[in-house]
Amino acid sequence: MPTATHDTEVLAAIEDWIRAFQARDLATMLRAYHDEVVLFDVKPPFQTRGRAGVRKVWEEALPCFPATFEYQRRDLRILREGNLAAAHWIFTLRGWPEGHPAHGMWLRATIVLERLDGRWVSRHEHVSLPIDPATGRGVASPE
Amino acid sequence: MPTATHDTEVLAAIEDWIRAFQARDLATMLRAYHDEVVLFDVKPPFQTRGRAGVRKVWEEALPCFPATFEYQRRDLRILREGNLAAAHWIFTLRGWPEGHPAHGMWLRATIVLERLDGRWVSRHEHVSLPIDPATGRGVASPE
Repeated sequence: MPTATHDTEVLAAIEDWIRAFQARDLATMLRAYHDEVVLFDVKPPFQTRGRAGVRKVWEEALPCFPATFEYQRRDLRILREGNLAAAHWIFTLRGWPEGHPAHGMWLRATIVLERLDGRWVSRHEHVSLPIDPATGRGVASPE
Repeated sequence: MPTATHDTEVLAAIEDWIRAFQARDLATMLRAYHDEVVLFDVKPPFQTRGRAGVRKVWEEALPCFPATFEYQRRDLRILREGNLAAAHWIFTLRGWPEGHPAHGMWLRATIVLERLDGRWVSRHEHVSLPIDPATGRGVASPE
């Protein structure tokens, strides 16, 4: 039966990645991806395949984040069996200037991880917000 | 090592669900969800927890789909270890009238499944399209 608890190994891998993100430490962030990772990101492109593609996404995106920010996470659930794990949560970044489009924005995250040589790496990530069909625009509040 | 192939059991569970969806067979669709499923849907709400919530989502959504439609799937990947599996793919529905907002729209899907009593059920689903930060609008094409 897959564990439904907060598996400490997988949780540590997720939190290590978040710390690297906050530190804009691209090399550490990239080591956390499998060579064949597939990313469904919150912004285009529609999908990004492979670590080289993910590197390009982050090289372009990292300079857009505030110099310092808090990563606030909620509703985490981790499922794990052996060397496969899946986790999802919702999050917001605190530190955007007032008026920035991402200020106060919540996102949904799903990640699929594989343990390779004793290290958890990301095989798949999906980050999004829902879109209101009436307006065609994203809805960035969990309430 | 998690299998990266098209695991036939998991693939059959996904395809059974799609057939139930095409037939608007809500009872069969709902049997494919775990009691504690968490849904990150393409439209609000931000997240839906539990099978009762998912039932409400589908009761409202099913009448909005065309009477008959084709479910076209691409880029499927399944990872499985024991009783845990994760899959992702992109898809479009063929059958919307010309001019309908969903006509020609591609979506990204991620699903996490658990095998319970020999049956694969969904613990988590995440369906979305990316949003262009310049316009705030969804981008529904994989190209």
